[in-house]
Amino acid sequence: MDTLNDTATQVAHGYINEKDRYLARLKRIEGQARGIHRMVSEDAYCIDILTQISAITSALENVALGLLDDHLKHCVLDAAKQGDEEAAIAKIQEASDAINRLVRS
Amino acid sequence: MDTLNDTATQVAHGYINEKDRYLARLKRIEGQARGIHRMVSEDAYCIDILTQISAITSALENVALGLLDDHLKHCVLDAAKQGDEEAAIAKIQEASDAINRLVRS
Amino acid sequence: MDTLNDTATQVAHGYINEKDRYLARLKRIEGQARGIHRMVSEDAYCIDILTQISAITSALENVALGLLDDHLKHCVLDAAKQGDEEAAIAKIQEASDAINRLVRS
Amino acid sequence: MDTLNDTATQVAHGYINEKDRYLARLKRIEGQARGIHRMVSEDAYCIDILTQISAITSALENVALGLLDDHLKHCVLDAAKQGDEEAAIAKIQEASDAINRLVRS
Repeated sequence: MDTLNDTATQVAHGYINEKDRYLARLKRIEGQARGIHRMVSEDAYCIDILTQISAITSALENVALGLLDDHLKHCVLDAAKQGDEEAAIAKIQEASDAINRLVRS
Repeated sequence: MDTLNDTATQVAHGYINEKDRYLARLKRIEGQARGIHRMVSEDAYCIDILTQISAITSALENVALGLLDDHLKHCVLDAAKQGDEEAAIAKIQEASDAINRLVRS
Repeated sequence: MDTLNDTATQVAHGYINEKDRYLARLKRIEGQARGIHRMVSEDAYCIDILTQISAITSALENVALGLLDDHLKHCVLDAAKQGDEEAAIAKIQEASDAINRLVRS
Repeated sequence: MDTLNDTATQVAHGYINEKDRYLARLKRIEGQARGIHRMVSEDAYCIDILTQISAITSALENVALGLLDDHLKHCVLDAAKQGDEEAAIAKIQEASDAINRLVRS
């Protein structure tokens, strides 16, 4: 977050680092999904499958909460700093709609 | 939201109206909680009680999502507009933490 | 659960004890709802209100999960023990529908 | 569910059909996870990624609710029908714990 006022290059670097971390987490989630598929194909006990589904759901929620935080701290704040209140409100509305879907899903 | 640039008086009026609506919804939620207590005391069927609990939980989530939206559109934007980026980031962080608790609860 | 094979009197006693505990928890939840109403009427900070809403939502979910567990261990098992498979399936279906609403609410 | 009293062969067939449907759904979920990974790698808009995460989370929950329903209607009922109350209670307890994790995740 302390890179917001930095030069474009530094912002890009910070962004790439974040992105690599997200990509690694999503790669793990993909592996977890494959693992659940294998469990079902090998007739694993249903309760054990449910445990894995809860784990992958939590992992996905963590990614979602991280992306949402980034959205608020970057997209929303950038619009607000540029004095574009309408754009900032629109981006907050998108965030609120996404939060609504997350809380209900 | 269109009152953000209005005079203080109008903002206050808008706020009071919002507040009255929240208070009415919370009064209803209190009544729902009392109703669930009564159902248990009268030995209502457990599945019917569960239906009422889902209803009150949804009502509470709607209030929470509304308050969160207000927080983002007012507290966060106001800080950002005043050029106080640190305060805006702090308020976004509080919002993210609250979203986290909501998604997990 | 160890009272399932006991006499009717003991079952009743066990049930009453459970019921008192549920009633006490629901009374607390009612008080929490009243507290949130008071916070809004006194213009409490929105994030603090959100924290209380998460607390009450968790408390309601705990009651729901307890009632669901009771439903499965009593209503469903009783039907199954009486050899009434159709009734047992019907009660499981009600439970599944309730779980569905809980997970989505 | 109407196959519960059928011959072992028919039960097996019914089970395989269920299994194929679960495997197809999990294959789709794996594809969705891969799609989210691609979206991040291609710098998709964060809100669009959040929408996809809500979709995959809902799909996972549906699989979980289906498996749970199967668990209750088969594992729990089978134990109860065999007069093995202790085993039935143990399986219900596992189900309750899984429901708890699902509701909280």
